[in-house]
Amino acid sequence: MERIYTSEVNAHVGQRVRLAGWLHALRRLGGINFLILRDVRGSVQVVIDTAGELACLDGLLPETVLAVTGDAVVEPQAPGGVEIRNPQFEVLSPVREALPFPLNKPQVKASLPVFLDHAVVGLRHGQKRALFRLSAGVMAGFRATLTGLGFTEIQTPKLVEAATEGGANVFGVKYFEGQAYLAQSPQFYKQIMVGVFERVFEVGPVFRAEPHDTIRHINEYVSLDVELGFIRDHRDVMAMLTQVIRGILAHLETHHAAELALLEARLPIAPPEFPAIYFPDAQELILEKWGEDCRGEPDLAPQHERWLGEWAQEEYGSDFLFVAGYPMGKRPFYTHPNPADPRYSNSFDLLFRGTELVTGGQRLHLYQDYLDSAAARGYTDLKPFETYFEAFKYGMPPHGGFAIGLERFIMQLLGLDNIRLATLFPRDLTRLAP
Amino acid sequence: MERIYTSEVNAHVGQRVRLAGWLHALRRLGGINFLILRDVRGSVQVVIDTAGELACLDGLLPETVLAVTGDAVVEPQAPGGVEIRNPQFEVLSPVREALPFPLNKPQVKASLPVFLDHAVVGLRHGQKRALFRLSAGVMAGFRATLTGLGFTEIQTPKLVEAATEGGANVFGVKYFEGQAYLAQSPQFYKQIMVGVFERVFEVGPVFRAEPHDTIRHINEYVSLDVELGFIRDHRDVMAMLTQVIRGILAHLETHHAAELALLEARLPIAPPEFPAIYFPDAQELILEKWGEDCRGEPDLAPQHERWLGEWAQEEYGSDFLFVAGYPMGKRPFYTHPNPADPRYSNSFDLLFRGTELVTGGQRLHLYQDYLDSAAARGYTDLKPFETYFEAFKYGMPPHGGFAIGLERFIMQLLGLDNIRLATLFPRDLTRLAP
Repeated sequence: MERIYTSEVNAHVGQRVRLAGWLHALRRLGGINFLILRDVRGSVQVVIDTAGELACLDGLLPETVLAVTGDAVVEPQAPGGVEIRNPQFEVLSPVREALPFPLNKPQVKASLPVFLDHAVVGLRHGQKRALFRLSAGVMAGFRATLTGLGFTEIQTPKLVEAATEGGANVFGVKYFEGQAYLAQSPQFYKQIMVGVFERVFEVGPVFRAEPHDTIRHINEYVSLDVELGFIRDHRDVMAMLTQVIRGILAHLETHHAAELALLEARLPIAPPEFPAIYFPDAQELILEKWGEDCRGEPDLAPQHERWLGEWAQEEYGSDFLFVAGYPMGKRPFYTHPNPADPRYSNSFDLLFRGTELVTGGQRLHLYQDYLDSAAARGYTDLKPFETYFEAFKYGMPPHGGFAIGLERFIMQLLGLDNIRLATLFPRDLTRLAP
Repeated sequence: MERIYTSEVNAHVGQRVRLAGWLHALRRLGGINFLILRDVRGSVQVVIDTAGELACLDGLLPETVLAVTGDAVVEPQAPGGVEIRNPQFEVLSPVREALPFPLNKPQVKASLPVFLDHAVVGLRHGQKRALFRLSAGVMAGFRATLTGLGFTEIQTPKLVEAATEGGANVFGVKYFEGQAYLAQSPQFYKQIMVGVFERVFEVGPVFRAEPHDTIRHINEYVSLDVELGFIRDHRDVMAMLTQVIRGILAHLETHHAAELALLEARLPIAPPEFPAIYFPDAQELILEKWGEDCRGEPDLAPQHERWLGEWAQEEYGSDFLFVAGYPMGKRPFYTHPNPADPRYSNSFDLLFRGTELVTGGQRLHLYQDYLDSAAARGYTDLKPFETYFEAFKYGMPPHGGFAIGLERFIMQLLGLDNIRLATLFPRDLTRLAP
């Protein structure tokens, strides 16, 4: 007999059916026993009222994998309105040790370290499954939106020859007789590929060797990268990012309503045009409202970002706020300056509910500008940049792009208090397993 | 004025339009000059018949990035039937050095090393763009097919604690004060995730530190990974793989006909059920037809795979052939044996035009079987396997899966003579850049 899913029993009332899944719970109520069988689509109640069938389950603990053949019968008191009677069990994979924490309670009751140590089973909990389905939905919505806008997907190498991008620290890799590094981002490659496809995106892992130990940093994460050519300036990039965010949210709303409801997630308010504030104006606002003078600082403090998030919600009813025009000093060497005031850059961050979700901007596109910028930063050895700069020597249009952190997106969407909860198997200073 | 693409000029005849792209070629024919402007969607001829406009282009070489404003005029002799007259040029990015090899010839005229050294510009050639669009199409077709079949996309870590998978060599990474490795595959993680989602897939980089120097190996490649639960045995996995391959090919046929035509690629013949041969039977066949006795060998030689590919084409009219039931000896420890003859495994390879494209099979799913298999292989320290084995301790259904090499797929599809031509920026023994 073909297996059906628990979600399909209602269509098979009056028939003998075959189901398969995990023993989610077994309640013994004297002569009658209720087994909850869970599969990927839901669960169903199985009634066991003969000693013989109950004996089949002797010594078996939750998470035992079973096939169950039985009659699908209407029972208004059963969850879902249909239950399975007269079952026959086949044990596909017995479990004889107690779980590190129960999976059949509404919430996972485990500290974060204990949960992460046992993520290989903990991820089976309904809330976790819903969360990582949303992650898959974010990726799908990202790709669908960009494909519809004429972007081409690329896959660029994660092993690179030189630690050229600056900023974050890199992991070293012994590469045969030589040395390689793990790419901190596909930045150089996605820019190069604008010369090929004009508009490109990539979904892939990035590696940051920063010895952070915070709730919002991990050392390997999934980056949703975009780069596009023939822009006016960074405002075209911001408009594209707005479309992408709205596309992702529309995808979640259409395809993941069940997961959003289960996780009690409120979809963010994302107006057709996200509000934007110029970086120096944001500093003025902070001075005015908080009395804190951060003018001259190259970045915003996390508490100021949080407050700006609230301000955008009150002022514009938006969960998103662009902060544009960061000072050139702290931005990478490929950043395009603001032509009207070269102290500031044509770059931006996007705050999502007061936390930085995206960094992006316009890049330099002229070969000579790259040479000048490298010289201004004191880069004396240009050999590591040679192949990158070659793309500009041979004609690159004005371009820009951005990178969305997948885990950061989920963290903010669901209001999680630690980014590790948005990562299947997080990597941090002390964790490399499971 | 909004930029339009070269593919849109026909819809703007009689209007003044703005185009942008690369100076693909400039032919000077005395008083009249023809410039071919290339963008991501095609190219258009621009007629220059005034000395003033020609002077704007003085000293500029191919690949200069231009915006062109001009009149779209019907001209039957022009490629595409419409040309641009009375142009005004704006130089967005000048090129003053000659390209390492021309991009405006039907074929790239460069040796493989020269091409790869200059891939950042070489990839702009029309044939290369078409090829990597097909790569994107293979990924899109893969995901669309699996999503339609109830699979969930996952992203698993590439930094792992132990080099546990066996077989291929691994790259070591200095991870803060400790040691990590680059994942050779998402094998363990995709199996674990069957316990969560029953059916999962992943598209991502894998890293192989094998010191190969062949036309069909690279050290970093893109793996299209699948794993599914509640199977009977490996035949269910083979049936799923067949659906996936056919789904990818249907996607290419629908969405990438232009690229296939440009590359003169013949879509493979992929019958609804791919022919399959049992490994020992394949060896008998080789003995019978070739007089070569390879019985007792754990694998097939490349020339035998090629011949089996031809045999499948002649015998079954199929470009694909399953070889199932490889001897247990050379397969990884998680491989499920054939219950009827435990010398052989429930694993398979899929040959595509006589080259191994996919490896897959049924895995062990019982905790005790993992302990026994590890013991039989002489693994004395099970600590590195602890979290992996925990998934089986807590109930895993019968399951299996496979991995398709993206670059290998493209190589066989297009009949390329080197896998490096199917990789944007290949990594091999001697190459880490660009």
